[in-house]
Amino acid sequence: MQILDGKKAAQAIKDELKISVAQRANDGKKIPHLAAVLVGNNGASETYVAAKVKACEETGFKSTLIRLEADISENRLLETIEDLNTDPDVDGILVQLPLPKHISEKKVINAIDPGKDVDGFHPMSVGKLVEGLQTFIPATPYGIMLLLEQYKVETKGKHAIVIGRSNIVGRPMSILLSGNSNPGNCTVTLCHSHTANLKEICLQGDIIVAAIGIPEFVKADMVKEGAVVIDVGITRVADPTRKSGFKLKGDVDFDNVSPKCSWITPVPGGVGPMTIAALMKNTYLSCDTKN
Amino acid sequence: MQILDGKKAAQAIKDELKISVAQRANDGKKIPHLAAVLVGNNGASETYVAAKVKACEETGFKSTLIRLEADISENRLLETIEDLNTDPDVDGILVQLPLPKHISEKKVINAIDPGKDVDGFHPMSVGKLVEGLQTFIPATPYGIMLLLEQYKVETKGKHAIVIGRSNIVGRPMSILLSGNSNPGNCTVTLCHSHTANLKEICLQGDIIVAAIGIPEFVKADMVKEGAVVIDVGITRVADPTRKSGFKLKGDVDFDNVSPKCSWITPVPGGVGPMTIAALMKNTYLSCDTKN
Repeated sequence: MQILDGKKAAQAIKDELKISVAQRANDGKKIPHLAAVLVGNNGASETYVAAKVKACEETGFKSTLIRLEADISENRLLETIEDLNTDPDVDGILVQLPLPKHISEKKVINAIDPGKDVDGFHPMSVGKLVEGLQTFIPATPYGIMLLLEQYKVETKGKHAIVIGRSNIVGRPMSILLSGNSNPGNCTVTLCHSHTANLKEICLQGDIIVAAIGIPEFVKADMVKEGAVVIDVGITRVADPTRKSGFKLKGDVDFDNVSPKCSWITPVPGGVGPMTIAALMKNTYLSCDTKN
Repeated sequence: MQILDGKKAAQAIKDELKISVAQRANDGKKIPHLAAVLVGNNGASETYVAAKVKACEETGFKSTLIRLEADISENRLLETIEDLNTDPDVDGILVQLPLPKHISEKKVINAIDPGKDVDGFHPMSVGKLVEGLQTFIPATPYGIMLLLEQYKVETKGKHAIVIGRSNIVGRPMSILLSGNSNPGNCTVTLCHSHTANLKEICLQGDIIVAAIGIPEFVKADMVKEGAVVIDVGITRVADPTRKSGFKLKGDVDFDNVSPKCSWITPVPGGVGPMTIAALMKNTYLSCDTKN
């Protein structure tokens, strides 16, 4: 069993971006600028946004963090998005999800200029992804593709099982893995809560991507010898022995599954850092194509 | 074995639309108007467009057929699209594919106003489809969903095998069947030219959708007893005994496969008429939401 080390792979990507940004600065060109919008103060969201801002600092990107109160009106949030859309210095706009319940996430995402939609959630970005056109690929699936690429994991002709059909991970993941690209060209089975014989299906997987948000859902008896296992889950589970009061658990029962795998991502240190690296790549791309 | 009779189901949809259109006319409201653009004179394209125009006549829709020479420039075609985009009387624009090689299909499709994109091929339409938002669903997969609905074929929790990953059929079909809707909620495996063990995978299918364009590709030994088989293929195969010089063949070896099926679509008379009915529904929807 070998570890798909997302921390290391993400660092390599950030190092490359740092060099490219420094080169741009030297050439007197514009520096990539990511604007992150955080509504309220959900603990996990705070952590994620902080990690993104830190990644900007590490790579030499400019970042702006806009904090809004949890009770902000939808209209005020939409105005904030519009200001960022029209600000020529901003290359990428990211609205940290989830949003408070009185705000429509779809409306907010659809309000982002597709040219700055570095999270890749706008319908225009998603449509281009499906059609194989250049676009911003949602950060988590993009990060997974970059990780597979970095470790030269063979995907062509393999059977990939994607568990979870969310618009943020499972669905775009299934589209990317089945696309005519490298990585890609997998036969893909997309599973979800209505899947009847999940264990049987998982056992066919040369590659399994678990994105359901249920800690340790994928057990050893669901995974065949030699499989590649990608664990997207990251759930906070109470742990009174830790200072934080919690530990992070993936969707895969790592201790029992990993001995059967050819490759597996750890949690933390797998998909998480790659998601951030992918977001940085999207933001760089946005800046580079326009300036 | 029972036949999923696309001709009959399409007729029922057209009959309903005809009543709705007559009602609109009675109420002094606008009548749906489909504009079809046909470049060159490919035989199959002529047939398809003629069938669409005829369906407009049957349902009381207004239709305009714009014929352009095969050597028209891309720019001239784009101007034609723009004229249709801005014509308030036109509800739906359909550009019959394929286009001559000197014209970029993507550019032309992307030029259609998403609000009139009744073929559902614009990235914005595709993105909305993925995200489960109301949109124009590509006509062939939409027609198949309507057929499954009409015949109350149970899909929830079933394993659907989609063979072919084209943007026009296989890919959107896989998205629709795996969506949280009815019909839908299938576990979906998307297969294509790189799929290693297609026969084994097909044998798991409660539902098989064949959309590869290879006549009689799906053989009886690839289909399990009781499967639902949807045949999207429609290839002209030379037949000197016929006046036309050809006959139409599906992707399924109907004679040998059909005895094993619970339901199967014939070719012709299955998916083809449903595609046209779906296009009519999209055009009606476009008119109805705006007027």
